Amino acid sequence: MTRRPRLGEIGLNTGKKARLHRILHTYGLGNGTALFLPYDQGLEHGPRDFFANPAASDPAYIVKLAVEGGFNGVALQIGLAEKFFWDYAGEVPLILKLNGKTDIPSDARPLSPLHATVADAVRLGADAVGYTMYVGSPAQEEDFAQFRVVREEAHRLGMPLIVWAYPRGEAVETKGGKDSFYAVDYAARTASEVGADVVKVNFPQPDKRSGVPGGYAAEFTPQQAVDAVVRSANRTLVLISGGEKADDQAMLEKAREAMEAGTTGLIFGRNVWQRDHDDSLRLVSRLKEILAKYPND
Amino acid sequence: MTRRPRLGEIGLNTGKKARLHRILHTYGLGNGTALFLPYDQGLEHGPRDFFANPAASDPAYIVKLAVEGGFNGVALQIGLAEKFFWDYAGEVPLILKLNGKTDIPSDARPLSPLHATVADAVRLGADAVGYTMYVGSPAQEEDFAQFRVVREEAHRLGMPLIVWAYPRGEAVETKGGKDSFYAVDYAARTASEVGADVVKVNFPQPDKRSGVPGGYAAEFTPQQAVDAVVRSANRTLVLISGGEKADDQAMLEKAREAMEAGTTGLIFGRNVWQRDHDDSLRLVSRLKEILAKYPND
Amino acid sequence: MTRRPRLGEIGLNTGKKARLHRILHTYGLGNGTALFLPYDQGLEHGPRDFFANPAASDPAYIVKLAVEGGFNGVALQIGLAEKFFWDYAGEVPLILKLNGKTDIPSDARPLSPLHATVADAVRLGADAVGYTMYVGSPAQEEDFAQFRVVREEAHRLGMPLIVWAYPRGEAVETKGGKDSFYAVDYAARTASEVGADVVKVNFPQPDKRSGVPGGYAAEFTPQQAVDAVVRSANRTLVLISGGEKADDQAMLEKAREAMEAGTTGLIFGRNVWQRDHDDSLRLVSRLKEILAKYPND
Amino acid sequence: MTRRPRLGEIGLNTGKKARLHRILHTYGLGNGTALFLPYDQGLEHGPRDFFANPAASDPAYIVKLAVEGGFNGVALQIGLAEKFFWDYAGEVPLILKLNGKTDIPSDARPLSPLHATVADAVRLGADAVGYTMYVGSPAQEEDFAQFRVVREEAHRLGMPLIVWAYPRGEAVETKGGKDSFYAVDYAARTASEVGADVVKVNFPQPDKRSGVPGGYAAEFTPQQAVDAVVRSANRTLVLISGGEKADDQAMLEKAREAMEAGTTGLIFGRNVWQRDHDDSLRLVSRLKEILAKYPND
Amino acid sequence: MTRRPRLGEIGLNTGKKARLHRILHTYGLGNGTALFLPYDQGLEHGPRDFFANPAASDPAYIVKLAVEGGFNGVALQIGLAEKFFWDYAGEVPLILKLNGKTDIPSDARPLSPLHATVADAVRLGADAVGYTMYVGSPAQEEDFAQFRVVREEAHRLGMPLIVWAYPRGEAVETKGGKDSFYAVDYAARTASEVGADVVKVNFPQPDKRSGVPGGYAAEFTPQQAVDAVVRSANRTLVLISGGEKADDQAMLEKAREAMEAGTTGLIFGRNVWQRDHDDSLRLVSRLKEILAKYPND
Repeated sequence: MTRRPRLGEIGLNTGKKARLHRILHTYGLGNGTALFLPYDQGLEHGPRDFFANPAASDPAYIVKLAVEGGFNGVALQIGLAEKFFWDYAGEVPLILKLNGKTDIPSDARPLSPLHATVADAVRLGADAVGYTMYVGSPAQEEDFAQFRVVREEAHRLGMPLIVWAYPRGEAVETKGGKDSFYAVDYAARTASEVGADVVKVNFPQPDKRSGVPGGYAAEFTPQQAVDAVVRSANRTLVLISGGEKADDQAMLEKAREAMEAGTTGLIFGRNVWQRDHDDSLRLVSRLKEILAKYPND
Repeated sequence: MTRRPRLGEIGLNTGKKARLHRILHTYGLGNGTALFLPYDQGLEHGPRDFFANPAASDPAYIVKLAVEGGFNGVALQIGLAEKFFWDYAGEVPLILKLNGKTDIPSDARPLSPLHATVADAVRLGADAVGYTMYVGSPAQEEDFAQFRVVREEAHRLGMPLIVWAYPRGEAVETKGGKDSFYAVDYAARTASEVGADVVKVNFPQPDKRSGVPGGYAAEFTPQQAVDAVVRSANRTLVLISGGEKADDQAMLEKAREAMEAGTTGLIFGRNVWQRDHDDSLRLVSRLKEILAKYPND
Repeated sequence: MTRRPRLGEIGLNTGKKARLHRILHTYGLGNGTALFLPYDQGLEHGPRDFFANPAASDPAYIVKLAVEGGFNGVALQIGLAEKFFWDYAGEVPLILKLNGKTDIPSDARPLSPLHATVADAVRLGADAVGYTMYVGSPAQEEDFAQFRVVREEAHRLGMPLIVWAYPRGEAVETKGGKDSFYAVDYAARTASEVGADVVKVNFPQPDKRSGVPGGYAAEFTPQQAVDAVVRSANRTLVLISGGEKADDQAMLEKAREAMEAGTTGLIFGRNVWQRDHDDSLRLVSRLKEILAKYPND
Repeated sequence: MTRRPRLGEIGLNTGKKARLHRILHTYGLGNGTALFLPYDQGLEHGPRDFFANPAASDPAYIVKLAVEGGFNGVALQIGLAEKFFWDYAGEVPLILKLNGKTDIPSDARPLSPLHATVADAVRLGADAVGYTMYVGSPAQEEDFAQFRVVREEAHRLGMPLIVWAYPRGEAVETKGGKDSFYAVDYAARTASEVGADVVKVNFPQPDKRSGVPGGYAAEFTPQQAVDAVVRSANRTLVLISGGEKADDQAMLEKAREAMEAGTTGLIFGRNVWQRDHDDSLRLVSRLKEILAKYPND
Repeated sequence: MTRRPRLGEIGLNTGKKARLHRILHTYGLGNGTALFLPYDQGLEHGPRDFFANPAASDPAYIVKLAVEGGFNGVALQIGLAEKFFWDYAGEVPLILKLNGKTDIPSDARPLSPLHATVADAVRLGADAVGYTMYVGSPAQEEDFAQFRVVREEAHRLGMPLIVWAYPRGEAVETKGGKDSFYAVDYAARTASEVGADVVKVNFPQPDKRSGVPGGYAAEFTPQQAVDAVVRSANRTLVLISGGEKADDQAMLEKAREAMEAGTTGLIFGRNVWQRDHDDSLRLVSRLKEILAKYPND
């Protein structure tokens, strides 16, 4: 098992440390782990994601759920943060998602444009910002250029920077696909190299081997793969993304393996809110039971 | 029926609330609903839109009509606002349309470039600004980037921001088309996510199903569709666009369904001014009769 | 006949009114009409335009001709304005042409890049600036973006802004061509919508109908077409461009029809200087006889 | 013969006049003509240009040669200027070449990106800056935009601006080629229109007629062609470029014809330093004999 | 043998000289030569480069190795520098690598986008910055434009600028390939022309002749080739890159030939850390034995 990095040893400046400490030790379980509720799917996929549970279409419902469930943070785009975070401001940390896109046009060379700045996050009382980086996209030049400005502003304002590190684009498709161990491993490393404080990745799938470079074509267990991803992220805290709604038992097992590997926490959206209210809270309880087993300083 | 959002609960800063309050409660019916007169078609389609009523080619005629009809606002591009709004400044709110384009070049990856700034709107005494966003366009990266600057400036200057949320571009065409329930619903949500105060959409057409994703391929009545669109917009006020000139009876029915769904008002241009002067005012009266039935705080 | 707009009613700020008044009432006939001498063809077409009268290759000859002919202004690019306007500064108004291009590369998506700023015009004592807009070009996004900066600077510095509104590009070619009534009418309107003070257009040719939208495919006389173009420009003053050298009698008839339609004046280059010196002055006299019949306040 | 323009009549501001006067009257022959040594070929073509005389690979050799030969200036890119001009600073004027490129990628739409600013030139004590403009390139929009900034900065800082006006790109190739009379004539004119103080062109070749527009397809002697080019440049001083190494006698004859036409001087690189040291100085002497016959105020 | 340039004669400003002196004379052998440890492969190639020695995946291991091995500097991207350099800050110089990319998308027109600024390097106490330039890439316009800003900032802040000069892109592939003598020679010269203080190149391979221009198609020994490359770099200090892991004996011979040619040092990454810890240190000792034979002032 890879050791989970401590806040004191990962090179954070004062403001970043203060805010991350608040997220990890004041909210949620308060044991140094994290469970986040992402809610940017209305922009990323459109309202169709709410068909499974129409109540979830209402951002007020989601922010309340984040409070009820004792999440360590809720991630919103600027428009919803402006209109809905006020209701519960202070009761749950806000992660202002800075960029996003619709999934209507072609995804061959994806890039996620900015909608807000780190200064907006400060103004709204957010405790972190989120940035989607499409690792391996043919548009990586624009992506890195855009990210650099965000990184600098986040450093200047002491705002923790969470990178949604998503392998994506036509080149990724030919090299194992977006969930392959190769792609997720490279994505985690990239986020660390370019300056993320926290990186959000999908659980790596070592059986996706078609087109992956040398070493990745060997046999790996899921545990070995997620261990390696956490190592590649080194002193960048890792969050495992829930992705599309999946079978509960399998999902919980992944969560456990991820925590075992040394991730700091989980960021689960559709798996949480694409079910009815009480069922959502029940799942949250089970996820927290796992997190409770992996306390960190 | 979805409840119409109140000005006090949608996260507006002071300047935005002051100006929207003026538009909704001082002009028009003064009951919290709105009827707007858009007049950017001379740029968007060219003078051919005035062939049905040549008098409408003269912006002075239109601004006067907005006053005579008791509209809640008239939407003009910067050139016409500079040359014609002075005549009736203060008698009807100005919505300065910030971007626009001609329809001569290909519409495969549309983007509407800026012609004016929010500061221009302030200088001209406007009470809101308008921005056309082509949701789903392959040019969405530039569109979002351009919008972000407008959103920030509108926030800084307390200027309400109305988004013309138009699904458009080659990708939209293959997924149900620009008026499909899917496309309009996604457009309303997008505007809300990225920070519109008010969103203008076309009436959704649930029978346009070719190529739409999963849930949208089911049967929906127009009322169900427009209800959903208003829900997707959540705390963003919704305006229904009149679009091309249509049969009066059908149009009035759509207006009624829209208000029933919880929209804040209507924005009708060609349906109003592509007929002679007195006929225009008669139609306006009938539209206001509908609005009068849906007062809001 | 459409009435010619008066300077007092077209929304000019103080500096713009002062400079346009100087151009229209202090120089030339001083009767509110204008005759301009454009000299940007050396860049737009190259020195081949001077083969018909080699003396015209010398900018000193042209500036002197503008003084001798009693023109209301001479239009120069920055390089020639810096080197030649000094000789007669104050004796004839300078219109600093701000953008331009060569005609060597493909014209499928034309855009005219900037060579100078409005501040350069102020420094050189110019009384107006000129901007070429290729209406309908596939590059219209860049064109409008570039124009916006010029419009703002011209407003700030009180400098009249004359738009060379030229339909151009591959899309225009398939919809009637650059001189069609449709294209010229749309171009005049576009200039007015986006903030021109004065618009320069070619004389519309209503017989170019191949591919034009609905209404424009009907029969129109040249007089009807130019009347409509002036209406479309509304409170934007209209100048008719001479274009390529043509038969004198036909050209004078067009000039008369244009003034009859309500244009403010004429801007003739090659028709003037592609003949010998004395013949140039004789033509100027005949053009001024026409202008003398259409005085304006 | 076209008269050579005098420094006092070409619209220079004080700083530009001071520096050009220094170049033309303090260095070289001091008679108002100029002989420049360009040394940007290491970037433009790579070290292969030094195979003919390996000593010329060393910039220290070249700067010393410029002093020994009594040149009116040596043109260097920023890297070499920083590292080598110090050795002889003040003994020969420096022309800081502001842009340049390698010839490895395709030349279909060439553009020469900036490596330094006019402020760098001031800091290094340069007396002029050089800018390569690829006249007729499909990239002319970027080229003109980049040039405009340089022109403004050169004006502000009183720094003479020498334009390397090179017809280039796929469109030029189909219209006579880069050395045709048509292309060179248009290039000289373009430089003058957009604000060059001095223009460097290749000697025009009137026998290259394939694809040139109308007038240029006639018969012209080389003398007639170069006369016309100088006329097209009007008050922009003209320098004739040596280009690739050629036969000495032919080259000297071209130099004489150029000076006869009214050019201000010569800028010869490879013809000078692609031979051994003493032979270089002998050639310089012969070139200066020609310049001595065309003194200017 | 080409003489190695001295720090006092290569045009450095005070800050650059101070920092380069520290690197070359205070760390490592302290004899004016250098051995650098580059560690940007995690971004450039992904974690697969660490499969040969998994310990090397941990940046803490590498920074410690740089100290243990007595390197003259370790090159890190901003993310790793922020998180790991603190541990040994002051014990080994930091070279902040300013740009980088993944190798997932196509390499036909490579460009390495910026992740950090020279100001970041100053803040972190770095003694130099690194910039990857893809010489000959079809994206050279953007590359040079990006480099210019870095060069100016490095000059202003007195920070030595090391250019990773890598021939790359589809045009290079058709002209001998990225390691050909032609390509490496041109790359070294380019770095010198555009303002590098130090240039890192691969060892030239004179037997790669397919498609190279004239002179390079002749027979050259490796020693002749590397001699020429050092001459082309003139007063820019040269570092030879180790590249992919190779046979030790061959590698040591190249190192010797490089030093013999006048390079200032070596920059070896994979050849060092793709073996176990003690073996790495043994190799470092052998490399330093070579460097010890080429002291410089």
